[in-house]
Amino acid sequence: LLTEVQRDRLEVVLVSPRNPLNIGAAARAMANFGFSRLAVATSYQENWREARSAVGAPDVLLNARSTESLGEAVTACTLVVGTGSLTYRKPDQRVVSLPDLPALVGGELARGGRVAIVFGPEKHGLTREDLSHCHMLVEIPTDTRQPSMNLGQAVAVCLYEVAIHSFPPERDAHRSEETKIAAISGRLEILADVIEQTMVATEYSPAAMRDSNRHDLRVLLRRMALSEADTRRVLGLFRRIQWWLKRRQSKQEDRA
Amino acid sequence: LLTEVQRDRLEVVLVSPRNPLNIGAAARAMANFGFSRLAVATSYQENWREARSAVGAPDVLLNARSTESLGEAVTACTLVVGTGSLTYRKPDQRVVSLPDLPALVGGELARGGRVAIVFGPEKHGLTREDLSHCHMLVEIPTDTRQPSMNLGQAVAVCLYEVAIHSFPPERDAHRSEETKIAAISGRLEILADVIEQTMVATEYSPAAMRDSNRHDLRVLLRRMALSEADTRRVLGLFRRIQWWLKRRQSKQEDRA
Repeated sequence: LLTEVQRDRLEVVLVSPRNPLNIGAAARAMANFGFSRLAVATSYQENWREARSAVGAPDVLLNARSTESLGEAVTACTLVVGTGSLTYRKPDQRVVSLPDLPALVGGELARGGRVAIVFGPEKHGLTREDLSHCHMLVEIPTDTRQPSMNLGQAVAVCLYEVAIHSFPPERDAHRSEETKIAAISGRLEILADVIEQTMVATEYSPAAMRDSNRHDLRVLLRRMALSEADTRRVLGLFRRIQWWLKRRQSKQEDRA
Repeated sequence: LLTEVQRDRLEVVLVSPRNPLNIGAAARAMANFGFSRLAVATSYQENWREARSAVGAPDVLLNARSTESLGEAVTACTLVVGTGSLTYRKPDQRVVSLPDLPALVGGELARGGRVAIVFGPEKHGLTREDLSHCHMLVEIPTDTRQPSMNLGQAVAVCLYEVAIHSFPPERDAHRSEETKIAAISGRLEILADVIEQTMVATEYSPAAMRDSNRHDLRVLLRRMALSEADTRRVLGLFRRIQWWLKRRQSKQEDRA
């Protein structure tokens, strides 16, 4: 089972939930399984206010964070897990079945990482853009005739599985302490920014491709499972490249 | 995983649910995990009608049975599992934690038995009387600070665990086919009736004790895990005893 400290490093993120009852139900499931960190990334401020002001709203809801974007909500997390069904999509990310999630989450928390489990809006779930912030997509193995779960029930099932079946994994003797700590999402975003700037500066591809490149870059950086130390090194390299590019550019301007 | 035929022998029973939204949520969770047999044991017919007439009510709800009592709902079942939290009670039944349920349910279904998972009303859960119809009580391991789950979420979590983690057990070579089939609840009730009549006829205990005796008898018969064949034998014995008691009584009357 997860310790109190580990539970406190697991964050539930709801992206643009529409029904205040579902927000309340998600918060209640969190309290049932001993989790307390809820973030709501939404522009529907009214639904959010309504959920919080409901009679008997649990502490989880009263203490929740509200952010403008999913990126902002998960900025401090080292493992971001999106949820959804695969019926209508072919994701860019690694897909794991819910029963396999506890070992991954338990391992990340035991290494001192911070985990986010992300739930999309009721109607259509997480978008491809939302998923570009995720390291993996977890699928709840539902019946193909009725694959889509109610939001509050999906949260309950995922947190039950993680709370009950997580266990600290055996120590990984092959990796040093430093390389075991995964990079936080915020640092990956900075790295993506710097690499993107480099792509633009070097005219890597046409301007029309920028959005697509940015998406692929996000997905790639998460798939690489970079450690905090790896990320610092890559970031250092790209900042150095940028410095040289600027230097070269100013020399060319001097010459002109 | 459970086969289609096995899933069809698992029944979800809701006892006196109050909120139509919760009834709908329970039905949806059933469809999500491939179960289709729902029974509602209730005297609140209005809430039940409202749930069924909701827009987009799933087939599970439209095909559900409505019964007057829990006993009637589970009469054909060989394993009846009550759900609840233990915070405020000390049950007479065996208690199992939800992660241990799939092996028990899977085993019973693989032997050809019929299983009911029973959920109580929102406010107070199953009563002691309700639980006297159950062979065991399953507990969802929730946080002690917020142990009580929302009805729809509790159904989702229980069905997820049973659907995903059930597996057919190895064949039990020590028991013959006949003794492997558990008695259905309806037969246990008939047996309880006959034993109770015998207790009354023999003036086993004061009339004031009858309700209490009946309760203890129900609990005892379920704890004994009688097979269908066992039950037939015990029933035969008690009917024989009744015949002798009547015969003796009529002889006494003849003499008088």
